[in-house]
Parts: sequence; C-alpha cells; structure tokens
Amino acid sequence: MELSFLAYLRGRCRSLPSIHLGIGDDAAAIIPTEKLQLSCTDQIIDGVDFLSAEHSLRDAGYKSVAINISDIAAMGGVPKAALVTLTLPLEDSTKIAGEVYEGILEACTKYGITIAGGDISTYEGPLAINVCLLGEVAENKIWRRSGANENDAIMLTGAVGGSILGRHLRPEPKVALAQKLQTLVDVTAAIDISDGLSLDLDRLCAASGVGAELDTDQIPVHPDAARLAESSGRSAFQHAWSDGEDFELLLTMNQHDADHLTQQRPELGLTQIGKTVGRTGLWRKYDRKVERLPPQGYMHQGKHEQTSD
Amino acid sequence: MELSFLAYLRGRCRSLPSIHLGIGDDAAAIIPTEKLQLSCTDQIIDGVDFLSAEHSLRDAGYKSVAINISDIAAMGGVPKAALVTLTLPLEDSTKIAGEVYEGILEACTKYGITIAGGDISTYEGPLAINVCLLGEVAENKIWRRSGANENDAIMLTGAVGGSILGRHLRPEPKVALAQKLQTLVDVTAAIDISDGLSLDLDRLCAASGVGAELDTDQIPVHPDAARLAESSGRSAFQHAWSDGEDFELLLTMNQHDADHLTQQRPELGLTQIGKTVGRTGLWRKYDRKVERLPPQGYMHQGKHEQTSD
Repeated sequence: MELSFLAYLRGRCRSLPSIHLGIGDDAAAIIPTEKLQLSCTDQIIDGVDFLSAEHSLRDAGYKSVAINISDIAAMGGVPKAALVTLTLPLEDSTKIAGEVYEGILEACTKYGITIAGGDISTYEGPLAINVCLLGEVAENKIWRRSGANENDAIMLTGAVGGSILGRHLRPEPKVALAQKLQTLVDVTAAIDISDGLSLDLDRLCAASGVGAELDTDQIPVHPDAARLAESSGRSAFQHAWSDGEDFELLLTMNQHDADHLTQQRPELGLTQIGKTVGRTGLWRKYDRKVERLPPQGYMHQGKHEQTSD
Repeated sequence: MELSFLAYLRGRCRSLPSIHLGIGDDAAAIIPTEKLQLSCTDQIIDGVDFLSAEHSLRDAGYKSVAINISDIAAMGGVPKAALVTLTLPLEDSTKIAGEVYEGILEACTKYGITIAGGDISTYEGPLAINVCLLGEVAENKIWRRSGANENDAIMLTGAVGGSILGRHLRPEPKVALAQKLQTLVDVTAAIDISDGLSLDLDRLCAASGVGAELDTDQIPVHPDAARLAESSGRSAFQHAWSDGEDFELLLTMNQHDADHLTQQRPELGLTQIGKTVGRTGLWRKYDRKVERLPPQGYMHQGKHEQTSD
C-alpha cells in the first residue's frame, strides 16, 4: 500500500460531513447527542459475497456500505460514520483499493456519512471489504425486531425478488423512507430484507413471539423476479419469497396506521402483505383455509444478528 | 459455521457489561452519555500479523481486542463495546472461531467491554480477526496527537523493546493508568507505541508541529530488548528505539506536571525521556551537542491514522 494512496484518501474524505475528530489520530471522536448510538458491521468477500471477475470493484465498495446502511435504516435510525477495513490481494493492491474506495465514497456521499477511520492490509487472499457503521436514533423511536403485537399489519416497502439480476449490487437502503415513517406512524417492529422475505419475516416474528398470516397475492413481485423465472425453473413468486438482498424493509404497525399509509400516502409505496397472529409460523390464507409456508432464503454464514431466535 | 456456535457465543456474551441492545437485532444500540464517542478499528491476519503455526489462536483473539483498547487508551478514553468480524478458513472453522473467541472474551471481560455485534464468514484464505472498538472520553479530556507544546516534557509509561519475544501477544493496554493520569495532570498529547518508540514519537511530534530532544540514556529499555540483542546483531537500545508492539503510551505535559509524576507518584512508573523543542525532528543531546536521530520502526501497511502528517 502506497502512503500516497492514504494521502489521497484523506483528501477525498474532506468533502464528507465532518465529525469532531476524523482520520489521523488513534481513534475517531464523534460529538455526542442525546440519541441512542447505533452500530453494526458487515463484510463482503470476493468469491463469497461478490465476484470481482463479474462485478466492478466500485460496485463492491458501494454495496459494502449500503448493506450496513440498510441495517441502520431497519432500526429506524440515520447513519453517521463508517470505519472501513480493506483486506487486499498483494497484486495490484493500490489500484484495487482506489476502485473500491470510489464506490465507498459514492455511498458515503449519497447518504451523508463520514469516514471516521479504518485499516488497510495486504495478504495472500481475496479482497475483503469490512464496514463498521455508526448511526443514531431517538431512544423512543428505535425499531426492534421484537416489538410486533398480535394483529399488527405487516408492511413491505417495495417489490422483492430477482435482485441477483443486478439490483443487489446497487441497493438503495430505505433511510429517508424510514425517517418519513417515523413522523407518520408508530412502527412496532422492523427488519431489512437481506436474506429473503420469508426468512427475514420469520426472524421478525420469532423475535416478537408472533406468527404471520399472509395474503400472498399482495406481495409485490419485482419484474426482475419474473424475468429470472423465465430461466430459473422457479416461479416469480418463489423468487419474491426467498431471494435475498432486496434491502426493502419489513415493518409492523397497528391496522389504523397501516390503513393511513396505504390510503392516504400511496406515494410512499408501502404494501400490506398480511398481519401478525398468535400462532407462530408463517401462514397463507387459501380458500378459507390456512396452509403453513416454510421460510426459505439465503442462510448467511454467521452474522451475529442470527443469534436471535 | 454452525448456528450452535452462535448460540454459544450469545450465551457467553451475557456475562459481559450490558448495553441497551446487543447481539440479535439489525444493529446494536448504546445509551448515550454526554461524552465524546470514540471509535477505532484494527485487524490482524494469520501470516501477516501473527502466525497460527506458532501462536495460540486464543492469544490472537486476545491481541485483536487489546491493540484496539490501546488506541482508545491513547485518546485518554475508556473502551465500551466491540464489533468483531471473523473471517475463517473453510477447514475447522467452528473450532478456530471458538478458540479465537476465548481470547476475545478474555480481553473483553478483563477490560469491561461488551460485544455489541459482528459478522462471521468462511472463505478460502487465512484467518483474519477484525475488531471495531467503541469507547468514550469527556470532551475536555480528549488526548490528541496534535496538542503538544514546545518545552513540554515527553513521558513514557513503561519499558520498551523486544516485545517480539512474547509480550506482543499479550499486550496490557494502559487504560487504567490513563484514567489515573486524567485525574492528576494535563496531558497535552498522546499516542500509543504500536510501530516503535521513535516512529510513534515522530508521528506525535509531526502532528503537534514540534520536535523532540531526547535524553536517550533515560529511555527504559525492557529486559527483552537486551535478551533479543544477544542474538539479533543489534543493540538493546536499537530494539527499544525501533521495535513495535509495546503498547506503552507516549505522553506530553508541562514540566511541572511531569515533575509531579516522577517525584510524587513513582509508583505509576512514568519516565521522562526528553522534551519537545521548536525545531522539528528527533534529536539526542550528546556531549553538549545535539545529533539527529532517524525514526525507525515497523511501517504498518495502511492504518488510516498514518494519514496524519
């Protein structure tokens, strides 16, 4: 790694929002607010989470930040500062770092995030990009997975499925929409869809101790899911049900709030896909009967959030 | 990675200090204080920063946390919460994760740190352990690298050199000592010695816009430096001057405060090794003359702090 790259990086970071003390000391310092401090981390690795032979490094850098922003949005929060660790192959390390950082800086600029620090190493292995993202949310406005009540409406912020056709590289985390919703309704529980609609809904339900009764015809199926179904041997619905990396939000709220959003604020694009019920599991209403739907999706290897049960 | 490991991990983390919301949601939430929020990150990689063939994985886990604690201590702060990302070889990944986490939990328990979250992946590459550490410090008590004044005393918290003989695996970051010093004196600048006494002193001086005139006979040379000199072909002083990973603190303060510490509080173990001067560079007093000493040490590949100049 050339020191000139680090000088370049420091220069590029100057245009990002300022914090009390950024890159250049033993640790960064952020001026406190009265809000809860949010923190999350997620890493993507070449060959595991993206393919440098197919995807641009700029996209990989963008994605590494965006997936963390989505986690902050799912808490009802706003991202503030990122710590970025690049682990680089020995060959072309400076060139790779530069391309990855173009995407990182693009995402940080777009979402108003400063780069508070980081670490860069080279080694005999594939490119890995780790982002630790700090954010904040008012204490009485935090959205947990565990807050859903029985008979809450289950809302989805957009269409899902088929993100692998390209959207997964350029996720648009729903920070602004989440902030808008904070002013309009009381969200009781939230999660972002990283591993699949059904799998992440199952997690929210499990954390809240409820089940879900779904009107599956109401689930907004993304056109990419239909396109993918043409060649995948699976239905568009199956893709919507189990594909990951949509980075839409799943939210619960009381029926009154849900009706307000669907009837009075259609421009926000939320769809009610069902309601929470007392019996656990995911269920589908079907000819006046209900049938159980098994959650399916991408089992992320070990993100700690999955220790929730 | 077996889900049972994540369940085990969540159980083990229960005994650590609690935060508002820990592992198990999209992000962790920490209750705010009126203090500055500190954050830093540092990664160690098998084959680059340690050797799993020679060092225990528990030690590697311990070290990954301790080196970050040292950065928080160097800001005059106290560590609070860690986000841990493990990147594991495909083979024996669960066993490796367990051993690494024993050391991580040991360090977190010892220094009162909670594990707020993390990520675990497996891949075709060497073990990498990334820790992002959050801490805090009162706004008027933060120690920067850039605060040293001309004619400040330069103080060292312990003996240096030869850490490669074993101490580098079990660093004891000076958090408690830093907190004690916060009550006794006004530290004007601080840095921890990770890359070598002379290199890190040079960084502090550069950030503060001063130089250093050293009484090199006063530099406490660790017995390990003398032991290492028996076989290395270099002198014990050279090891003290340029070996890294001592994780002692270099501090500057006015001469009055320095005298108070050395004369009234010898039990704290601080040694004055020189003073800051107006002309930049590191200098040694020598027979009424001064000679320039070139900084030497381990050039870390890319920790962002090195973008300071």
